[in-house]
Amino acid sequence: MSLEVVIIGAVAAGPKAGCRIKRLDPGARVVMLDRDDLISYGGCGVPYFISGDVPELEGLLSTSFHFVRDAEFFKGAKGIEVLTRTEAVAVDRKAKKVLARRLDDGREISLSYDKLVIATGSENLVPPIPGVELEGVMPVGNLHQAQAVKQMVATGQLERAAIIGAGATGLELAEALNDLWGVEVEVFEMAGQVLPGLLDPEMARMVQTHLQGQEGLRLHLESQVQAILDDGQGRVRGVSCGGREYPAELVILATGVRPNGRLAAQAGLEVDERGAVVVDEFLRTSDPDIFAGGDCVSLPHLLAKERVSLASGSLANRMGRVIGTNVCGGQARFPAVAGSFCIKLYGLAAARTGLDQDQARRAGFDPAAVLVVQADRAHFHPDQKLMYLTLVADRKSRRILGCAALGENGDAVVGRINAVAGLLHKGARLEDVSNLELCYAPPLGAALDILNAAANTLENLIEGRLRPMSPAEFARRLRGCEKEGAGDTVFLDMRAMDNVAPYLECHAPYWVHLPQETLAQRLDEVPRDKDVVLICNSGVRSYEAQCLLNHHGITNTYNLSGGVAAVKLWGEPILRQTEKEEE
Amino acid sequence: MSLEVVIIGAVAAGPKAGCRIKRLDPGARVVMLDRDDLISYGGCGVPYFISGDVPELEGLLSTSFHFVRDAEFFKGAKGIEVLTRTEAVAVDRKAKKVLARRLDDGREISLSYDKLVIATGSENLVPPIPGVELEGVMPVGNLHQAQAVKQMVATGQLERAAIIGAGATGLELAEALNDLWGVEVEVFEMAGQVLPGLLDPEMARMVQTHLQGQEGLRLHLESQVQAILDDGQGRVRGVSCGGREYPAELVILATGVRPNGRLAAQAGLEVDERGAVVVDEFLRTSDPDIFAGGDCVSLPHLLAKERVSLASGSLANRMGRVIGTNVCGGQARFPAVAGSFCIKLYGLAAARTGLDQDQARRAGFDPAAVLVVQADRAHFHPDQKLMYLTLVADRKSRRILGCAALGENGDAVVGRINAVAGLLHKGARLEDVSNLELCYAPPLGAALDILNAAANTLENLIEGRLRPMSPAEFARRLRGCEKEGAGDTVFLDMRAMDNVAPYLECHAPYWVHLPQETLAQRLDEVPRDKDVVLICNSGVRSYEAQCLLNHHGITNTYNLSGGVAAVKLWGEPILRQTEKEEE
Repeated sequence: MSLEVVIIGAVAAGPKAGCRIKRLDPGARVVMLDRDDLISYGGCGVPYFISGDVPELEGLLSTSFHFVRDAEFFKGAKGIEVLTRTEAVAVDRKAKKVLARRLDDGREISLSYDKLVIATGSENLVPPIPGVELEGVMPVGNLHQAQAVKQMVATGQLERAAIIGAGATGLELAEALNDLWGVEVEVFEMAGQVLPGLLDPEMARMVQTHLQGQEGLRLHLESQVQAILDDGQGRVRGVSCGGREYPAELVILATGVRPNGRLAAQAGLEVDERGAVVVDEFLRTSDPDIFAGGDCVSLPHLLAKERVSLASGSLANRMGRVIGTNVCGGQARFPAVAGSFCIKLYGLAAARTGLDQDQARRAGFDPAAVLVVQADRAHFHPDQKLMYLTLVADRKSRRILGCAALGENGDAVVGRINAVAGLLHKGARLEDVSNLELCYAPPLGAALDILNAAANTLENLIEGRLRPMSPAEFARRLRGCEKEGAGDTVFLDMRAMDNVAPYLECHAPYWVHLPQETLAQRLDEVPRDKDVVLICNSGVRSYEAQCLLNHHGITNTYNLSGGVAAVKLWGEPILRQTEKEEE
Repeated sequence: MSLEVVIIGAVAAGPKAGCRIKRLDPGARVVMLDRDDLISYGGCGVPYFISGDVPELEGLLSTSFHFVRDAEFFKGAKGIEVLTRTEAVAVDRKAKKVLARRLDDGREISLSYDKLVIATGSENLVPPIPGVELEGVMPVGNLHQAQAVKQMVATGQLERAAIIGAGATGLELAEALNDLWGVEVEVFEMAGQVLPGLLDPEMARMVQTHLQGQEGLRLHLESQVQAILDDGQGRVRGVSCGGREYPAELVILATGVRPNGRLAAQAGLEVDERGAVVVDEFLRTSDPDIFAGGDCVSLPHLLAKERVSLASGSLANRMGRVIGTNVCGGQARFPAVAGSFCIKLYGLAAARTGLDQDQARRAGFDPAAVLVVQADRAHFHPDQKLMYLTLVADRKSRRILGCAALGENGDAVVGRINAVAGLLHKGARLEDVSNLELCYAPPLGAALDILNAAANTLENLIEGRLRPMSPAEFARRLRGCEKEGAGDTVFLDMRAMDNVAPYLECHAPYWVHLPQETLAQRLDEVPRDKDVVLICNSGVRSYEAQCLLNHHGITNTYNLSGGVAAVKLWGEPILRQTEKEEE
């Protein structure tokens, strides 16, 4: 008797599980169903299809070698029977049958299984805003909606768009419409930062500053859209927010997704409080003959004591393979997740893995974090770009808890985060990153890589030699001094005079020049009665100064993390007239 | 009493140790000496200075923010006294004194120490070839020699150069002279591959193929230069090799380096059989008051049961910090090394970490290895390039032993290897890489990353589902069939007809077309009396086919690793007339 497998959902986890099953047990009978007629696609590629980077929709539906992954492909190349436009309506666990309905003719069919795979994905959250039902308002969740948007923009019907939600999809779509097609885009976000939950506030602020430099793109943070406006004929004409109206021919709802565990819940399987299917480390549901994977499940977080649902084609694919193995009798385990994430927006890449400092605190750790700014390869190599990297570790155990980075060389940014992701999963400690054996050649890395340097810096902090100050706190204090003409803080600029002159002009008397190499001879010039912020270009020389001052018992100093470079990307003008900013 | 530290050697490990000491203990007295007048430089940057990527020599001598790291800089900014052009001639361990000689006036000085740091680096191997003493023959080891070469090339005195040695420095210099300045370069290498000891033979062959496509660069492998030729006036005029003469105005000796442990040995410290200083995990020599680091020491290999000396500015810097910590009473450990390495040549990056299959076998493992070819990001993204990646693991324990990769997006290549390097150090197993939580977004990664895919493929091999054939073995068999007009092998091409037609024309009757999606219906067409090589573009569809054939008891098949893509980069023409090769 050959194994009978039914798979519900044919986008990522489902097809991957099905293919793995057929490779392990070519005699198995695998039937896969999906409500849609377009299956097995790269949904994360939608913004790149809309922008035109991916010219044809087929690009998202094809294998690397241009086979379109349709039902016929799965039949011929994979030996999997696919029923498209077929909705699973119920699971009879006792009889081990799935009841499904064909959407085109309403016919019901019953499919028996030995093992069932639930890969029902996620669904778009529709915000409770008046007007969401208007024509021209849509989530961009599936390829049909993507085609509709591409059609509008490519035929010149779109000049202004409003995007509700500054998460990953919202921002990728904003870039696709704005940068490539010149559409004026307004992005509205209820949170006080872009990419909430995905990047820590400091990194998010740096992304925000970068976005605010893009023509035709406007971000509205802490902004709740009150209504989507009707043109009188049932089509959208704009949105209203904060008492103002913003005209738009298209409104995209990008307010997030939630796991779709409805079918599983109806079948009596365990789901969590957000409706996600609960699975064990073998990706089995509470019924051992039913597996689930992809966006519809929740998984334990590697470090936080909670279960998380992450909509990710990458997780879904990896889960699909583990399910396939286990459906065929294997014992493959799926690990807890650290939440690795990356995005590229207008040439700037951001990535993270693990916890940020606040998340780590909430998870019960005693975290310390540093921000380091350094060239992403040999600083003398012409391809080098500055990278901004935050590393988080627990003070006591020195266990690495998370890492985030930003930079223009996206592969370089992601490469660092991926290295940390692997280490996180192996319980690595600070010294593992200090001594991480990264490859080195001038075009491809730095002799002392930013990851090594960040771990060293974090050790200095934990051991009390380094007292950092964040760009945010620096800005708050600078603005305070500016307002009062003085204050409790003195900014001690340790760079060369040609860097410093405009700052002195702008911020005397609370901005003082004291080159680091002269410090040992001029210790008595360091103010003792105020907080002293030590400033250099990247935070390295000022750390050197802090060590010397500590040694002489002068401990009223703070080292500006990442130096002037970090403040610049963070987006605070240090000089009142920004045109005076040095290059 | 303040701590007195003497550091011998001021290039990488020495300065790093000194700076760390001064930060931990600003009251310490640190004296650093070096034979040269140019110190603290990025020696690995020499090829980029010669090419012009780094326009001024100062670039290699400066900090990120353009401070030249000379003796004055170390005095002012770091509080370290540097004695340049000063050679350490002896260490009196009993009296705890270093005897040194000033090269300019011959004066001897004596420096007492509490702790001594030996960072005497490596020295160039000079091959025993007649003529090495001629003018115009030089190693490119230090900045003075680099300046001399740059001067020649920039003033048009150099049209033809011979480089002896196809290691990393030899090939980087070859590119610098050839690609940027148009110099005709002949590279001579005694081994049968480029980058011997640095890349496995298969990856090295792929690099070789790439190099052989560059105009004005010629590689001579398994070629020993017999003599360097005199122009009659004591200047070089070329080299002779294999009975031929190759004219050249410059001969660069790039035959490698050896650790310089002479001073340590003279002082009675333990050195290994290659002359490298033996240090423990705290980087202490056999005298607990003397530390050593950088190119002059040997370290235990992480996986092979041997000590290795790796000349690397990156290792040297990391060692310097650990020495600094321990000189000040700390207990920092330096880990064993996996030998992470990378290089970029004419736009192609190659990187590796850990052991290749042969090295693993010699180290007592039972290794399995796979070659995987896949896009380095979403295959539909326009920036994607193919990456070629080999993963090695032990069959029994499934421990990861090594990884190597090639590709045009250098940061993407190095990012994968760095992730594996971290995992290697944590004793990771195959399933850790299968499920490695890499960041994913279409411009920055693939939903199922090449690392995940390689681990999955290697699992398939170890579990007996996949029987791979290397590009080399494929080429051997194809050439055999071609010669005989047939043979013991049939090549079963599983791609679409438009790919396959020229191959059929060229290689009938031993090349047979059988599209993978039709295989289930045509099992009886698969030959049983010969070895069958399953072929597709990248090795994925042919693996699918192999699983189906295994299931039906047809086990005389081999899957071409990396498919046609791998054979192409490996550099074997599959068609006799290469102009017929498909794009």
